[in-house]
Amino acid sequence: MTPDRLAIHTFTNKPWSIHECLENYARRGIGGVSIWRETVAGHDLAKVKKHLDDSGLKPVSLVRGGFFTGKDLPTREAAIESNRTAVREAETLGLPMIVLVCGATLGQTPEENLDQIRDGIAALLPQAESAGIKLAIEPLHPMYAGDRSAVASMRDANELVESLNHPLVGVALDVFHVWWESGLEAQIQRCAAADRLFAFHVCEFKPDFDHVLLDRGLPGEGVNASARIARMVQATGFEGLTEVEIFSRKYWSENQHDFLEKIVQSCEAL
Amino acid sequence: MTPDRLAIHTFTNKPWSIHECLENYARRGIGGVSIWRETVAGHDLAKVKKHLDDSGLKPVSLVRGGFFTGKDLPTREAAIESNRTAVREAETLGLPMIVLVCGATLGQTPEENLDQIRDGIAALLPQAESAGIKLAIEPLHPMYAGDRSAVASMRDANELVESLNHPLVGVALDVFHVWWESGLEAQIQRCAAADRLFAFHVCEFKPDFDHVLLDRGLPGEGVNASARIARMVQATGFEGLTEVEIFSRKYWSENQHDFLEKIVQSCEAL
Repeated sequence: MTPDRLAIHTFTNKPWSIHECLENYARRGIGGVSIWRETVAGHDLAKVKKHLDDSGLKPVSLVRGGFFTGKDLPTREAAIESNRTAVREAETLGLPMIVLVCGATLGQTPEENLDQIRDGIAALLPQAESAGIKLAIEPLHPMYAGDRSAVASMRDANELVESLNHPLVGVALDVFHVWWESGLEAQIQRCAAADRLFAFHVCEFKPDFDHVLLDRGLPGEGVNASARIARMVQATGFEGLTEVEIFSRKYWSENQHDFLEKIVQSCEAL
Repeated sequence: MTPDRLAIHTFTNKPWSIHECLENYARRGIGGVSIWRETVAGHDLAKVKKHLDDSGLKPVSLVRGGFFTGKDLPTREAAIESNRTAVREAETLGLPMIVLVCGATLGQTPEENLDQIRDGIAALLPQAESAGIKLAIEPLHPMYAGDRSAVASMRDANELVESLNHPLVGVALDVFHVWWESGLEAQIQRCAAADRLFAFHVCEFKPDFDHVLLDRGLPGEGVNASARIARMVQATGFEGLTEVEIFSRKYWSENQHDFLEKIVQSCEAL
């Protein structure tokens, strides 16, 4: 696809400031942007909003809320409060959606974690409703299921959004996390048929990764699943931008303009 | 559980030779042993069999066959031939079962890999039948689904064994690989109810692992799922030994008698 059909997550170009991201994405003809809370921490969000509006980039999502699980109630209530802050930030920035990395607490069972996640999202929903902000649950790869997200497959994500059954609650599908799942196409269709496929991220899993978080690949690298899964998503009639979210110490050490060019080129095949 | 209810995989004590494994396990009162092909490579298998018989250890399984996938037919036929060799080795050693790590080929879809795995096992079955050797499919954690096994969950394993529908084909359940799976208990019951739960391995996943293969934990470490899943397995009436299979550069650098003692102690809680 052409660059105007892409949105880039600011954390993909971690060495760049939020303003460098907005300028460089716009200059390269990228269609939109998803903004990480880390990228705008300490910034005047009203000024960022102004720059975002001026850039012409389509605002896609705030990344990320979630982490709803915890051993005790005060911990879980603090998590909900932090998510309420994220909703206010999304409003200020004019971002229509928050990506949720839902959380997992070491030693809790998947079912205990999933129950706490469901309760946390339900508690956040009234504020999301008043703000009109969508909540996109991102299933994470099961190698993060111990401490980052008990929502570990598209199947898990579908069951969770169906149990919450709210028009503002859907799924952010990321190739990096779900490429391994058997029956994936049926799960994507199940999600899209209920109008719950809110976002689509590309990034490749490298079986020989050298860091559990920070060695992700461009579309076409590693297990090379982005094109295959993009076809499944496109077949559902998904109309959103395709988001590029890559964490990579390797690419962060390169010139970021060169990396952006590699992103554009690797996404031509999608 | 007491040591006589445990079997240890020889690769768990990689620094030991096969003969040191057999002597030290028997001396410590361990109930059985699963033998890795790597541990006996280059050995006279008839002599190993004699030592195994003399040790009083229960022979549990040969580890491992599998890797049935491949881009072309000659590659897949070579894989089946290698598995036929494994069947002969299991016969020679008097081991009643082979653990299968089923394979995945980079760039193939999960469905393509699973089809090739099904074909490979079906092709191996006549020889397994003549030898009376069981084939235990081990679902692997999805972080290995790109290049080691497309069978990435108990759900996948159940679907595969049900489609093969043969009394010699079942599942080797390893805590390390499936702790993250939602609905796991139902999948274990589904497997056991059909008499297809052939083996149970304990080993913990550490979310902060420093090596994708060689930083596994003792029961109680990391996500601490061994006791929880052991209860699920015991509730099905499973009567096999509980197998300890831990790959760890950390524990391999220690005195192996001390490591064996830690294994025995950590398994008391199961």
